[in-house]
Amino acid sequence: MLDLVIKNGEVVLPEGTFNFEIGIEDGLITKLASEIDEQADRTIDASGKIIIPGVIDGHTHFEMPYSTPAGTFLTSDDFLSGTTAAACGGCTTILDFVTPEPGQSLVEAFNMRKGVASRKAVIDFGLHVILNSASESTQQQMETLQNDYGVTSFKIFTAYKKRGMMLNDGELYGVLSKAKALGALILAHCENEDMINSNTSKLLSEQKNDPQYHALSRPDFVEAEAVQRMGFLSELTGASVLVVHLSSDRGLQMVLDSRLSGERLYAETCPHYLTLTNEVYQRKDAAIFLMSPPLKGKADLERLWKGIALGEISTVGSDHACFTLEQKMKAKVFTEIPGGVQGTENILPILLNGVTQGRITLEQLVKVTSFNPAKLYNLYPRKGTISPNSDADLVIVDPKKKMKLEHKYLHSNLDYSIYEDVNVEGYPIATIARGMLVFQDGQFVGKEGRGNYIFRRVPRFSS
Amino acid sequence: MLDLVIKNGEVVLPEGTFNFEIGIEDGLITKLASEIDEQADRTIDASGKIIIPGVIDGHTHFEMPYSTPAGTFLTSDDFLSGTTAAACGGCTTILDFVTPEPGQSLVEAFNMRKGVASRKAVIDFGLHVILNSASESTQQQMETLQNDYGVTSFKIFTAYKKRGMMLNDGELYGVLSKAKALGALILAHCENEDMINSNTSKLLSEQKNDPQYHALSRPDFVEAEAVQRMGFLSELTGASVLVVHLSSDRGLQMVLDSRLSGERLYAETCPHYLTLTNEVYQRKDAAIFLMSPPLKGKADLERLWKGIALGEISTVGSDHACFTLEQKMKAKVFTEIPGGVQGTENILPILLNGVTQGRITLEQLVKVTSFNPAKLYNLYPRKGTISPNSDADLVIVDPKKKMKLEHKYLHSNLDYSIYEDVNVEGYPIATIARGMLVFQDGQFVGKEGRGNYIFRRVPRFSS
Amino acid sequence: MLDLVIKNGEVVLPEGTFNFEIGIEDGLITKLASEIDEQADRTIDASGKIIIPGVIDGHTHFEMPYSTPAGTFLTSDDFLSGTTAAACGGCTTILDFVTPEPGQSLVEAFNMRKGVASRKAVIDFGLHVILNSASESTQQQMETLQNDYGVTSFKIFTAYKKRGMMLNDGELYGVLSKAKALGALILAHCENEDMINSNTSKLLSEQKNDPQYHALSRPDFVEAEAVQRMGFLSELTGASVLVVHLSSDRGLQMVLDSRLSGERLYAETCPHYLTLTNEVYQRKDAAIFLMSPPLKGKADLERLWKGIALGEISTVGSDHACFTLEQKMKAKVFTEIPGGVQGTENILPILLNGVTQGRITLEQLVKVTSFNPAKLYNLYPRKGTISPNSDADLVIVDPKKKMKLEHKYLHSNLDYSIYEDVNVEGYPIATIARGMLVFQDGQFVGKEGRGNYIFRRVPRFSS
Amino acid sequence: MLDLVIKNGEVVLPEGTFNFEIGIEDGLITKLASEIDEQADRTIDASGKIIIPGVIDGHTHFEMPYSTPAGTFLTSDDFLSGTTAAACGGCTTILDFVTPEPGQSLVEAFNMRKGVASRKAVIDFGLHVILNSASESTQQQMETLQNDYGVTSFKIFTAYKKRGMMLNDGELYGVLSKAKALGALILAHCENEDMINSNTSKLLSEQKNDPQYHALSRPDFVEAEAVQRMGFLSELTGASVLVVHLSSDRGLQMVLDSRLSGERLYAETCPHYLTLTNEVYQRKDAAIFLMSPPLKGKADLERLWKGIALGEISTVGSDHACFTLEQKMKAKVFTEIPGGVQGTENILPILLNGVTQGRITLEQLVKVTSFNPAKLYNLYPRKGTISPNSDADLVIVDPKKKMKLEHKYLHSNLDYSIYEDVNVEGYPIATIARGMLVFQDGQFVGKEGRGNYIFRRVPRFSS
Repeated sequence: MLDLVIKNGEVVLPEGTFNFEIGIEDGLITKLASEIDEQADRTIDASGKIIIPGVIDGHTHFEMPYSTPAGTFLTSDDFLSGTTAAACGGCTTILDFVTPEPGQSLVEAFNMRKGVASRKAVIDFGLHVILNSASESTQQQMETLQNDYGVTSFKIFTAYKKRGMMLNDGELYGVLSKAKALGALILAHCENEDMINSNTSKLLSEQKNDPQYHALSRPDFVEAEAVQRMGFLSELTGASVLVVHLSSDRGLQMVLDSRLSGERLYAETCPHYLTLTNEVYQRKDAAIFLMSPPLKGKADLERLWKGIALGEISTVGSDHACFTLEQKMKAKVFTEIPGGVQGTENILPILLNGVTQGRITLEQLVKVTSFNPAKLYNLYPRKGTISPNSDADLVIVDPKKKMKLEHKYLHSNLDYSIYEDVNVEGYPIATIARGMLVFQDGQFVGKEGRGNYIFRRVPRFSS
Repeated sequence: MLDLVIKNGEVVLPEGTFNFEIGIEDGLITKLASEIDEQADRTIDASGKIIIPGVIDGHTHFEMPYSTPAGTFLTSDDFLSGTTAAACGGCTTILDFVTPEPGQSLVEAFNMRKGVASRKAVIDFGLHVILNSASESTQQQMETLQNDYGVTSFKIFTAYKKRGMMLNDGELYGVLSKAKALGALILAHCENEDMINSNTSKLLSEQKNDPQYHALSRPDFVEAEAVQRMGFLSELTGASVLVVHLSSDRGLQMVLDSRLSGERLYAETCPHYLTLTNEVYQRKDAAIFLMSPPLKGKADLERLWKGIALGEISTVGSDHACFTLEQKMKAKVFTEIPGGVQGTENILPILLNGVTQGRITLEQLVKVTSFNPAKLYNLYPRKGTISPNSDADLVIVDPKKKMKLEHKYLHSNLDYSIYEDVNVEGYPIATIARGMLVFQDGQFVGKEGRGNYIFRRVPRFSS
Repeated sequence: MLDLVIKNGEVVLPEGTFNFEIGIEDGLITKLASEIDEQADRTIDASGKIIIPGVIDGHTHFEMPYSTPAGTFLTSDDFLSGTTAAACGGCTTILDFVTPEPGQSLVEAFNMRKGVASRKAVIDFGLHVILNSASESTQQQMETLQNDYGVTSFKIFTAYKKRGMMLNDGELYGVLSKAKALGALILAHCENEDMINSNTSKLLSEQKNDPQYHALSRPDFVEAEAVQRMGFLSELTGASVLVVHLSSDRGLQMVLDSRLSGERLYAETCPHYLTLTNEVYQRKDAAIFLMSPPLKGKADLERLWKGIALGEISTVGSDHACFTLEQKMKAKVFTEIPGGVQGTENILPILLNGVTQGRITLEQLVKVTSFNPAKLYNLYPRKGTISPNSDADLVIVDPKKKMKLEHKYLHSNLDYSIYEDVNVEGYPIATIARGMLVFQDGQFVGKEGRGNYIFRRVPRFSS
Repeated sequence: MLDLVIKNGEVVLPEGTFNFEIGIEDGLITKLASEIDEQADRTIDASGKIIIPGVIDGHTHFEMPYSTPAGTFLTSDDFLSGTTAAACGGCTTILDFVTPEPGQSLVEAFNMRKGVASRKAVIDFGLHVILNSASESTQQQMETLQNDYGVTSFKIFTAYKKRGMMLNDGELYGVLSKAKALGALILAHCENEDMINSNTSKLLSEQKNDPQYHALSRPDFVEAEAVQRMGFLSELTGASVLVVHLSSDRGLQMVLDSRLSGERLYAETCPHYLTLTNEVYQRKDAAIFLMSPPLKGKADLERLWKGIALGEISTVGSDHACFTLEQKMKAKVFTEIPGGVQGTENILPILLNGVTQGRITLEQLVKVTSFNPAKLYNLYPRKGTISPNSDADLVIVDPKKKMKLEHKYLHSNLDYSIYEDVNVEGYPIATIARGMLVFQDGQFVGKEGRGNYIFRRVPRFSS
């Protein structure tokens, strides 16, 4: 007997729209059929609703310490509240980061992080490992992590030197070469460190300390230069690189330029770059909108939407790194404010609203939220599709449901919403993670610790 | 009760490889499941085999009259023998052409052709309509054909002036504009008429009459110029254009160049361009290899395979237009020999062999043989996928089966094979068309006239 | 003793601006010096004035018959009035065309034309020969004309089929191949004949006969398609091709695109495309502005100026083909009106005004009016520079002189000016042709028949 | 009375080849004429010879201290021996560098350097100033140096951090912005510092110390990355940047790519990259060929010649930085060997030999050796042309003279030649600097300290 049957919904996949019923058993999709007569413990009638694969948020920062001259701040969502918020936004998988301490082995850091996450996560999760060195030992551990721990993606930074995360171009060449050899994916935070420092020094020397100046310290070219360099390195080494949190037209242009030479440079953008512009930095509470790279102009926002529509941008991750009002408002100098905003619960609603507005199609939405990240992060076909034997990770969407993305409706451990005034049409009404309803009627109905760590493998070759 | 269940096969779709069982009822796929327990009339155990969607051959010329100065030749396959050969090569749908006589209405020509095909075809079929005029009336009939007769694709020629098929650039502008308004697809035969005539006159004036000179009358640039022009017109009008039977690297380059400006120019190539080169024109029986555009060199062949691998070429159609040895050998002057070769039975084996050789992946094979043509020709999702509610059009492939593409194994009404010496590894062992086994164990087991005409519709928007 | 010395002027060449004095003897520049003390018959004090090489107008149509359905019209300037107007506009050399009659040998046509011109021309002249066939004989005559008659440039048309001038793509391939072998230059009139015919038929069928519809029959893409095709042929054959009378942004784009592949495709534009826009076609006297290709929009005009500034456009020729008011106004249907406008006297003033407006530099002006055409047409260094041993072809310009380009100030045999309302700042005050003052103080002071035919030779290699 | 007349030579300029006589008085060209009858102190009959403008070597390092871990080495040519060698190679102007000490003002460093050079130089010279900071003060001094000291070009390094010369990307943005505001030229040494360090550490850790490993520490991509970044900065700021000593195909490709976006990125290459390849690093005396960037492969050499022929490379400077055998052979570890080779005497012979070999034309040679550097460095038209009022800087070349570039024929203060086995055809036989013969019949005949410092000015706009 089936555990769950979903009937009458319109099923949307990247390749088209279908009408079939879905049967679920033991956390897996076991049956797709024109009609399922079989008995089931529970049946959902999805008439008038849309069923899509669960969203994969490839970019969260739960319970992550963030140091500034003003102190060390911990992101306010831990793996419990964070994955809860994710689930309530239609996510069924998240990928978070392992940040090794200076001197700590990558494997040790990985094990600690995996342990914490396993105890709390309400949905499945994977882990990217941050590379803060390019040493022989680091490169050896990349191989170990991939073979023995299921880590097929590593993150590098071209900035954040003071926080110990930046790799220089020589080091990048080393780790990208290793990633190429392993078939691993490199996630790249692209900003030019020295340009930021120059701009920042100049601003501070002019007493331009307020949060709004953060954006001026990181104009679009700061991102674009680093993206161009990453394209060069990707072509040089043959490594696949995903430029994360792409924020600007200029940056996107560099991604596209690099493709002319045939490299494998991909791009992720985030819900905030698709919703807000740098006008918010004129507000009194500008600090709550402070993240890196910062918000850009209206033309950038439009170009990023178009990039999704044209298939130029491969995925939308949240870069979810929340800080409470108190954390955000503590420091007065922009260099001391922890950077980051909420997002994991907002990816799907914001993209659905884009569908309603005619910016993208539902098929494109599904592609960037599930199919593409599943392929990039080696989760496919366990995740990222609706197919027999795949995990029963599904979202039921009401395309007509209107919502205001106010704090009171959201589930992060946070006392405000950066989307307070944002109205959307199209919203998830149920999330099913490995066969279990975890979100329904606006309520979280899942279970702490039910999320599993996903051991990933690089396929022999990709299609 | 199900009519047919297929178990234990590896199911390959463009998006990946899956293991599920397929249930079929009344000609439709009704169930995909991890395991089907239900009773079925018949069960196929596909262990060790691969299951893919039925091949869509978008380019056949069955029982088509072909006039040269030496007389009018009828292609030797009629809709019965032609679709039989197709089915035995893994095709479950073909699209053939309506060729209006001078002065005949397109609708009348369509109805006659549809009638003939319906009586004989053993698999489903669609019809493209050839436009031999750009008049007001022609444009009006395009609309009628699309709305009332299910024709969403029209063919044009930039050559064949004497055969009454060529449209000049002014006329092309007219019909492409209309196609854009309708959302219809234009199939374009791209060769430069005047260049061919110049070359031909020169060759004939030098007594270079033998079949081998056909190739010299149509060097690659004859194709490339016309493709470039079609790219210009596609961009200008916004119409989607499929360049059919692309034969050369130079032609492909023009397709790619045109895409830089964002037009919708697609390309089809044919099995012969992927298998044979112009070396065969040195043979005594060169005439049997005569087609337009002619075969090119080894570098072109390699580039076309790479074009499939890179997704630059959207589909592989056969351009199946057979003539018997007698028909081919009758005339001695190359301009008098009917042009065309067999192919509908060979698409899949030749591409499977490309997979065996490591040229392309199975996923790419499926994309160009079923998914892409189904999308281009508006057959999706009825055709071109394996999904509940879709037609049960499937091929079971034995990836290890070795075959020589000799005449004796093939099913066209023909007394030779142009692939006599071609060995392949990977071959279809069963074809299922709308739920019925039509090919099995090397034998045709289908039924005359069972094929249905497919009424096609342009979707409101494409993904 | 020197015949003439010019002192105190600022000498402008493409490579820079200089202050030296110029000594002239027997029609040649014999001396450039910081100061010339030597005696001279005549001394011109050019204080506050600019001295540049004489303008080479590579594109005139004097006393040319032009047939339309309404009759045959002869351009109103013969070689006397035409070269007089040219001289009064700062030209010291013009190149006109030989138009062979159907069946007439190119050499015979050349000799007749040369004879007429020699008797009348007041300044030196060269002749391009129009190719109205690509036959063996034509190609042989190209060689004879080049070797024995000093013709190194030939003109082809992609349009004007009815007027017997169009070559089709096969023929173009032939003559361009021959031009490549000879090192000759092809001048190409680029418009798509069939598109024009389609548009024209449609307009006429809708009773859109008025002159203004001429422009609608030849939108920019009519030019752009033909330019793209010419770029293809230029690359294919390796021949150098000058696209004459380029009128549109879209056409220029095609020139630039073709250069990416390394072909030798050059562009000429005309003074009218730099001064007037298609707004004039709304005027009652629209017919006087009718030429092919027709005037385009403001953005095209701006882009052409920019093309000169960026070095993308190599030269500015007049395409001077005047018709009197009576000739222009006779027919009421746009297809019956002879096409063409004045221009040879206006090239320099219009470009000088562009310098005044800051659109281009004087150096760029000199490059496109003398250096480049001298190089393209193989006149260098006899023409196109200011250097000892070169012909003493000079213009003295008053950069502050204001003029209105009204009929009363101009010298063509014409009863109106298309530039009636055009004010310019910067105007030639003297023209010296082979050492003789031919224009001074607004008056023509030259002599009928003093112009020599220039026998041209292709250099072994060009720099 | 004239001081000097040169008769009967063939005068070559970028725009063509001429036959005129040249009259010189008080160091200036005062007369160009078909024939000069005037009396002259001295007449040179240049029959069968070629006369070109004096070579401008924009890149010398005379008496420059160079520190490595093995000590500080002074380049072996001082301004006397260096400019002597230059003059004997056809140079009439060199531009050397001012290297401010840490903490020293740019102006002070400039004055010291100018003083030394003025006392010794035998030909005219200019000075570029190296920027080792981007501070407010540095930027202010750039302005002062330009306005008050005639310095219109500044040099930056993307490498040589330890030697205190590297500017980071933030600093580069600052100085390029300032250069744009001033209209000054930036000379850029383009190599990626971090990549070099990574490679070097790896090599040294593997005991790969020999001179040959220097080349492996700086593969072509080390240059290409930095060139790409410089292209980005040039586009971003609008500053004109000359990439000096370009050594690789890959680097050149980046220069060309950057031009697609319209930036002003120029390239200089050096005689050694046009003559030698990295095969020499297999020799026992590899150390004498050690320079940065190092020699590349044969394909790079060929591509650089083609770059000159196509006008992609703007100039050829020597990067003359000689060290004696003892200096070169002292250290055994490649990081400790002073980098640099001779060159100022070899530019012209090596390029003349390229003309003899048919690689480039004489016109192109003149363009890159005199016209282009005169324009880039704001010396034109005082230098870089043959024109009345210009400095009488000329070289008389015997295009048939054969030479071996052995040590015994050369004039640097050096005990070997890196071109020992190089045979050339085409050699200067006389150099005239400001009207004075300084080199004749293989002998230096000039005078210490006769060279003047050239005060340069940025023109209001460039052609």
